[in-house]
Amino acid sequence: MLIRKRSTRKFMPTSLSNASEKLGMPPGSLIHVGDIQEEDSRISVIDFNRTELQEPVVETVEELLKFREKDSITWVCLEGLKNVEITELIGHYFKIHPLVLEDILNTHQRPKFEEHDDYLYIVLKGLSLDRDAASVNGSFAVYHEQISILVLNDFVFTFKEKKDDLFLPLVQRIRNGNARVRNLGTDYLTYAILDMIVDQNFLLLDSLDENIDAVEEELLSNPNSNTLVAIQRIKRELIDIRRSITPLRELLSSVQRSDTKLIGEKSQIYFRDVYDHVLRITETTDSYREMLSGLLDIYVSSVSNKMNEIMKILTVFASIFIPLTFIAGIYGMNFEYMPELKWKWSYPVIWVVFVTVPICLILFFKKKKWL
Amino acid sequence: MLIRKRSTRKFMPTSLSNASEKLGMPPGSLIHVGDIQEEDSRISVIDFNRTELQEPVVETVEELLKFREKDSITWVCLEGLKNVEITELIGHYFKIHPLVLEDILNTHQRPKFEEHDDYLYIVLKGLSLDRDAASVNGSFAVYHEQISILVLNDFVFTFKEKKDDLFLPLVQRIRNGNARVRNLGTDYLTYAILDMIVDQNFLLLDSLDENIDAVEEELLSNPNSNTLVAIQRIKRELIDIRRSITPLRELLSSVQRSDTKLIGEKSQIYFRDVYDHVLRITETTDSYREMLSGLLDIYVSSVSNKMNEIMKILTVFASIFIPLTFIAGIYGMNFEYMPELKWKWSYPVIWVVFVTVPICLILFFKKKKWL
Amino acid sequence: MLIRKRSTRKFMPTSLSNASEKLGMPPGSLIHVGDIQEEDSRISVIDFNRTELQEPVVETVEELLKFREKDSITWVCLEGLKNVEITELIGHYFKIHPLVLEDILNTHQRPKFEEHDDYLYIVLKGLSLDRDAASVNGSFAVYHEQISILVLNDFVFTFKEKKDDLFLPLVQRIRNGNARVRNLGTDYLTYAILDMIVDQNFLLLDSLDENIDAVEEELLSNPNSNTLVAIQRIKRELIDIRRSITPLRELLSSVQRSDTKLIGEKSQIYFRDVYDHVLRITETTDSYREMLSGLLDIYVSSVSNKMNEIMKILTVFASIFIPLTFIAGIYGMNFEYMPELKWKWSYPVIWVVFVTVPICLILFFKKKKWL
Amino acid sequence: MLIRKRSTRKFMPTSLSNASEKLGMPPGSLIHVGDIQEEDSRISVIDFNRTELQEPVVETVEELLKFREKDSITWVCLEGLKNVEITELIGHYFKIHPLVLEDILNTHQRPKFEEHDDYLYIVLKGLSLDRDAASVNGSFAVYHEQISILVLNDFVFTFKEKKDDLFLPLVQRIRNGNARVRNLGTDYLTYAILDMIVDQNFLLLDSLDENIDAVEEELLSNPNSNTLVAIQRIKRELIDIRRSITPLRELLSSVQRSDTKLIGEKSQIYFRDVYDHVLRITETTDSYREMLSGLLDIYVSSVSNKMNEIMKILTVFASIFIPLTFIAGIYGMNFEYMPELKWKWSYPVIWVVFVTVPICLILFFKKKKWL
Amino acid sequence: MLIRKRSTRKFMPTSLSNASEKLGMPPGSLIHVGDIQEEDSRISVIDFNRTELQEPVVETVEELLKFREKDSITWVCLEGLKNVEITELIGHYFKIHPLVLEDILNTHQRPKFEEHDDYLYIVLKGLSLDRDAASVNGSFAVYHEQISILVLNDFVFTFKEKKDDLFLPLVQRIRNGNARVRNLGTDYLTYAILDMIVDQNFLLLDSLDENIDAVEEELLSNPNSNTLVAIQRIKRELIDIRRSITPLRELLSSVQRSDTKLIGEKSQIYFRDVYDHVLRITETTDSYREMLSGLLDIYVSSVSNKMNEIMKILTVFASIFIPLTFIAGIYGMNFEYMPELKWKWSYPVIWVVFVTVPICLILFFKKKKWL
Ligand SMILES: [Mg+2]
Ligand SMILES: [Mg+2]
Ligand SMILES: [Mg+2]
Ligand SMILES: [Mg+2]
Ligand SMILES: [Mg+2]
Ligand SMILES: [Mg+2]
Ligand SMILES: [Mg+2]
Ligand SMILES: [Mg+2]
Ligand SMILES: [Mg+2]
Ligand SMILES: [Mg+2]
Ligand SMILES: [Mg+2]
Ligand SMILES: [Mg+2]
Ligand SMILES: [Mg+2]
Ligand SMILES: [Mg+2]
Ligand SMILES: [Mg+2]
Ligand SMILES: [Mg+2]
Ligand SMILES: [Mg+2]
Ligand SMILES: [Mg+2]
Ligand SMILES: [Mg+2]
Ligand SMILES: [Mg+2]
Ligand SMILES: [Mg+2]
Ligand SMILES: [Mg+2]
Ligand SMILES: [Mg+2]
Ligand SMILES: [Mg+2]
Ligand SMILES: [Mg+2]
Ligand SMILES: [Mg+2]
Ligand SMILES: [Mg+2]
Ligand SMILES: [Mg+2]
Ligand SMILES: [Mg+2]
Ligand SMILES: [Mg+2]
Ligand SMILES: [Mg+2]
Repeated sequence: MLIRKRSTRKFMPTSLSNASEKLGMPPGSLIHVGDIQEEDSRISVIDFNRTELQEPVVETVEELLKFREKDSITWVCLEGLKNVEITELIGHYFKIHPLVLEDILNTHQRPKFEEHDDYLYIVLKGLSLDRDAASVNGSFAVYHEQISILVLNDFVFTFKEKKDDLFLPLVQRIRNGNARVRNLGTDYLTYAILDMIVDQNFLLLDSLDENIDAVEEELLSNPNSNTLVAIQRIKRELIDIRRSITPLRELLSSVQRSDTKLIGEKSQIYFRDVYDHVLRITETTDSYREMLSGLLDIYVSSVSNKMNEIMKILTVFASIFIPLTFIAGIYGMNFEYMPELKWKWSYPVIWVVFVTVPICLILFFKKKKWL
Repeated sequence: MLIRKRSTRKFMPTSLSNASEKLGMPPGSLIHVGDIQEEDSRISVIDFNRTELQEPVVETVEELLKFREKDSITWVCLEGLKNVEITELIGHYFKIHPLVLEDILNTHQRPKFEEHDDYLYIVLKGLSLDRDAASVNGSFAVYHEQISILVLNDFVFTFKEKKDDLFLPLVQRIRNGNARVRNLGTDYLTYAILDMIVDQNFLLLDSLDENIDAVEEELLSNPNSNTLVAIQRIKRELIDIRRSITPLRELLSSVQRSDTKLIGEKSQIYFRDVYDHVLRITETTDSYREMLSGLLDIYVSSVSNKMNEIMKILTVFASIFIPLTFIAGIYGMNFEYMPELKWKWSYPVIWVVFVTVPICLILFFKKKKWL
Repeated sequence: MLIRKRSTRKFMPTSLSNASEKLGMPPGSLIHVGDIQEEDSRISVIDFNRTELQEPVVETVEELLKFREKDSITWVCLEGLKNVEITELIGHYFKIHPLVLEDILNTHQRPKFEEHDDYLYIVLKGLSLDRDAASVNGSFAVYHEQISILVLNDFVFTFKEKKDDLFLPLVQRIRNGNARVRNLGTDYLTYAILDMIVDQNFLLLDSLDENIDAVEEELLSNPNSNTLVAIQRIKRELIDIRRSITPLRELLSSVQRSDTKLIGEKSQIYFRDVYDHVLRITETTDSYREMLSGLLDIYVSSVSNKMNEIMKILTVFASIFIPLTFIAGIYGMNFEYMPELKWKWSYPVIWVVFVTVPICLILFFKKKKWL
Repeated sequence: MLIRKRSTRKFMPTSLSNASEKLGMPPGSLIHVGDIQEEDSRISVIDFNRTELQEPVVETVEELLKFREKDSITWVCLEGLKNVEITELIGHYFKIHPLVLEDILNTHQRPKFEEHDDYLYIVLKGLSLDRDAASVNGSFAVYHEQISILVLNDFVFTFKEKKDDLFLPLVQRIRNGNARVRNLGTDYLTYAILDMIVDQNFLLLDSLDENIDAVEEELLSNPNSNTLVAIQRIKRELIDIRRSITPLRELLSSVQRSDTKLIGEKSQIYFRDVYDHVLRITETTDSYREMLSGLLDIYVSSVSNKMNEIMKILTVFASIFIPLTFIAGIYGMNFEYMPELKWKWSYPVIWVVFVTVPICLILFFKKKKWL
Repeated sequence: MLIRKRSTRKFMPTSLSNASEKLGMPPGSLIHVGDIQEEDSRISVIDFNRTELQEPVVETVEELLKFREKDSITWVCLEGLKNVEITELIGHYFKIHPLVLEDILNTHQRPKFEEHDDYLYIVLKGLSLDRDAASVNGSFAVYHEQISILVLNDFVFTFKEKKDDLFLPLVQRIRNGNARVRNLGTDYLTYAILDMIVDQNFLLLDSLDENIDAVEEELLSNPNSNTLVAIQRIKRELIDIRRSITPLRELLSSVQRSDTKLIGEKSQIYFRDVYDHVLRITETTDSYREMLSGLLDIYVSSVSNKMNEIMKILTVFASIFIPLTFIAGIYGMNFEYMPELKWKWSYPVIWVVFVTVPICLILFFKKKKWL
């Protein structure tokens, strides 16, 4: 099974839109819906049992058929969904319902688990840090890839939107002959794939944590309107993350409640473990949400505080000098009969006033705890 | 089946009101309640089975009766509900309960699914972009049309408030002899109709997405009180959209739980597919709601920020010039004994003061990070 | 059955208080609790079956006993609860549990449905627009009347706090010999009464809608502190409305789930219809609640905007004139050696400065988008 | 049974703290936890059946044992829990589980209902107005007393923290030979006690209502920072009230669902009545909570409004006089060549300006709706 | 069993991060995940039955095996998890599932209860005041330690992250031969351990209470931006506390619903008691959360109030002196024809004006309730 580095590609930010492309088509129409992540597709195959392992290079779907006769487990990974014929042919040869194929190709699915007569269908989102987008606006950005899993008796199909090395560690474990995955069935392989995808989220949460810490620090040292934009950007990513993650709870509890023969008794404990991880991830995102709303409160308050600071300065300046200016104005009047103007000590006395008034006012402001 | 372009018409904005028109009438009174969308009604009929297809022009309800003997599926679409006699006659000939007829005509129903002995009754809202209203106030406006579906053994009735081409793509698929809808029963036709109505919402969500993006951009570049009004207008439309969409979740899970003979085992998977779409739509509207509340937070903060900007300017101006004006005032006083007035270097010295004081203040404000 | 116009009366605003009047009394103590709405009571009776109808004038409870022998349906409506002996006697002759009688007289009940061995007890709130209170403070005010319904085998009792024409349309339908209510049992009559009370709420919602619209218009044209008070007053009425309406959902689903013999199979569809109406009313009040909170947001923002406007004016005035005043102050100083004072072109030059400085500042403010 | 007036006592405000006093002790350790309300304890006993009544003065727990042989109902009320030996002995003689005894003495329990083999244990909070605390800070203060009820076959024990006349009306009803309580069992007595405690809350709600009304009035006439503190104080009391009351809902529905032999069929209707009261109380507190949050909104807005008022005054003053002062300043300059200074009509003309400019500005502000 | 004082150590603040350390490893990989609290591990053992007690010093896991033959209860407490071999060996000898071992070592678990065939697994958080962190920033800081409990037939294992004297009181009770724990099985010991951990939270809540009180006092006397930071810091700790405590409710109700043979009928009442405590703790944290949000409201309002105060001062000063300065300015003009300048009483008259104008303005402000 060949898994290569992520190729360089142009990337449009994942959006909620584009969901209406298929409007008016009959159900089961096989058209790729979503941002096209890869121009070409690649099929990787790994076929193994307790003792043997094979990683054939496969060009056409028909080459997969020969593995149906073998007793071994065959994992087929399709990366890049634009070329819909491959999915269509897999559906044709392995008798997958048209609606399931439609869901595989429409990359706006809500994560779910479907039990069919001869196979299970799992669709979920693989979340990864979008480092390209992050480097552009210097912020936290998440890339949501739809991953579909078909679990048949001896086959497991995974459908990914893009080519990357997500499954590489798992492939390497399979190559190692002693791994548990070599001794157990397609159910354990399915678990291992799910675990891989779910555990990836912890990485995301760590990055999220760092970003929130950075924003918080900025907020306490030098809050500005960019801080608010940063908070809102993280909040928005969090909304999307929650949309991708929350349904996993339901998905995994459906798997555990299911009485399908395709998942054995012994594997249930493993799915429960993934379920635990999902719970932890969900609760952590809930905590981050509350933290962000706390940061927003601090931001709003810090803006008010800054205003108060400014107002104090203005008030102190104005309140001290306005009365003094008035006094100076009095003795700037040109009346003929103003006896003070003739007195010898007037000017020194007025300077005493000029010094005393501000001192009194400053003491007053000190008492009011403004200075 | 004839489906024409939407005729030009005067349009009153859909409101929550007018619900009380029937107050005090006996239950089952057949009076049209709601804004009248069409003055005249039109009955369209399409009758088909695996091999044959007929689209007779029908003027009276009685002409429909002859299709009862045929084994084919008959889809009757009534557009325009003002002329209540048509609905009354359909109710009479096809034995529909008066309360159901009342619900068809009262266009303020909450979406629901009702199982009756010989038929199913589904009522829901068809949401479409109201481009007329949008062009008036340049904002996002949604038109909520009530659509009722009666599913009998060999008949499907749809009742729409207005004439449009919503069902056109489905009609064209039926005309194509190979379509799946030609081979399956009224349950699949019902699914196809529901799918059509539900999928229309994706279009709406795309438009909503664009509107929110536009508002967001305005908010970050030039927030003003119109931005707030725009946010509130979208928020209000969202409230209405959610009122129309949320009950669909319950509606479709009732359909799936139902054990009526009118929906076959094989069709259940299709209704589950619509259910998925409804879940996705509901969650997307939830996300938009959170986004809007985030935008509101940004708006409020940006207003405060603007105030801070203004206050800073005022404070800097006032704080610099008020002390200087006072100094100038001192030497504007007319005391006879003011020795400085006679000194030769007084005036240059005072200019040094006039230059030094602002520089010090500006440095002070720089240190306070105001400039 | 005689139903008269509402008599003029003094009206204390309905409050949450007065609930503690009976403190320390044994359970089942028959004392009227609540604001007394009517000084005297009136018993109205209508006795009917498919063919016959009788509306006897009744003065004492004992006169009702003769209708127990007849097979017809007897509807007894008691208006005005202050005279507790009537309720007590009805309880005595028709074997009603003391706790039920207590609940009828204590007009602070939460709407509920109780199944007893020989009768059903329904208590709910009839909401109507309080036009008297509305005319005083020019605002939206709702009057909450407690209505109790006792459903026996051949009898239906309704207990109302005040005399009005709420049931008049229903009475007139009964008088009309062909009405469905004449052909069905006490269960259908109960439904018709409930429907009457519930449908009244639509009227209320329409009025609420108008009030919110009026407030919204004022908010966008000329927001002032009265607008805020109006919003809060509507919000408060909405809290009360929700308290009266929300329990109806539970009440009606209890009726539907109940297996009492007093409600026949055929009537269930009618109660489901009322249930639908209750759902619609509840959701509509939820929408109004969200709208009001949106209006509050607009109000708060508009107050901030107004402040910004005021601050801009002040800042522009002060920023333009304060430097000019300082310049004038310079040349108002009385130093002997100020060469500019002697120059011939000083005064024209200073005027050029007086004109140039404001122009520059205005251009600066224009650039900042303040003017 | 002797019930005396509440003795004067020093009173520490009930707090959430002091819950950790027993940390590290073995479960079932009998130590009084909580603020000590009474230094000494008092045992009151009333023993009765349909025909007889006895109110013996009891000094020791052993004296109670003789009532075990009698068929009558014995109600033992212990007031003051500091002396733990009494509770310990009751536990010993009547075979109460140590954990129950611990809960009786630890007065920080969450209200609950526990079914044991031979007895029922109910613990709840009796809420009363704390008039002493109220008189100190002139505000609404609630006193939370823990009341435990043990229901045995022929015995009912009540444990109260302090001596007061809460149960006096019930005792007097018992003394009256005709009361229902004399004819029914310990279950009805338990109901009567619960009803007494729950009904007390209505009194509280009335007082709360008055306090909220007072705050609201102050808010509309003269809002100040004390108003805010008053709102927050009520809000905080409401949090505590809800903590004491909310679990009662669960408690009473457990009682109704329970199939213990200690509560007879006939008494269930009475517990349902208390349940209704609890629902009403809970919903009322919910309403108060919403009202308080509305009051907070008004407060915040009124502070902003006040600021606007102040800013207007300042802006009008400054905007009118600043330009005039500048004009006066111009002609205060000492340039030799200022032709206006010599003109005869300069001074009258300048006065025309001094009058015209403010008039124009005032008209401008009037147009802006500021004056 | 040896339990020592907490050793001095460097302490990194517990964070949400570091959860992704194991990414890509096969499930069941035994690596310690989390902040390392102790460099070295310590095994303490206490083996007891009704009559005997032994506290052997144990260096290797193998030494534990001999206790398997004995009928006594053996409690093994491992403190310090960095040395993963110990946990691995315990897992090996006592047949613990690798996923359970993984959870013991990964200290980011969500509290949960797992029933396995031969043992129970409980993992929860022990919360304690972090006095070191508290002394640094003078604030409330909580230390979250993960504690795992394995309940086997005759063995109880506890795994703690750090060495402290948390279990010391329980150990001392065991040493005392008469304690209940000596007479009952591993289920009671498990209860006693849980109770110890849960009761520790009451201490935390008391400290939280004190901190909130302190913040509240500061808020009412002298609110500043540090107060806001303090509120937010407590809020954040509360988020973490709730994350640790909320799952305990579910954990303990799972224990009660469980039908494992490892927990006897007689012990269930004890677990119900811990459940009660957890409910109380959860509700108390909910209350604190509401209180904190109330404090935030007060803070925001007090900042606005302060601004109002400042603005009033400024407005009063400016409004009084600006008109006076203008008047002085008038008579500072140098026009030749200004008759007032020559009048003898001009100067006294102008002083009357200077005194009268401020008095009038002050009266006006008094009327407006500003002074
Ligand atoms: Mg997406
Ligand atoms: Mg479709
Ligand atoms: Mg995508
Ligand atoms: Mg995992
Ligand atoms: Mg795990
Ligand atoms: Mg409207
Ligand atoms: Mg509508
Ligand atoms: Mg009706
Ligand atoms: Mg209806
Ligand atoms: Mg409509
Ligand atoms: Mg669809
Ligand atoms: Mg977008
Ligand atoms: Mg689909
Ligand atoms: Mg705010
Ligand atoms: Mg009131
Ligand atoms: Mg009321
Ligand atoms: Mg009562
Ligand atoms: Mg009333
Ligand atoms: Mg009652
Ligand atoms: Mg109705
Ligand atoms: Mg406290
Ligand atoms: Mg407590
Ligand atoms: Mg206490
Ligand atoms: Mg308490
Ligand atoms: Mg009661
Ligand atoms: Mg962090
Ligand atoms: Mg893993
Ligand atoms: Mg840790
Ligand atoms: Mg942690
Ligand atoms: Mg405990
Ligand atoms: Mg306890």
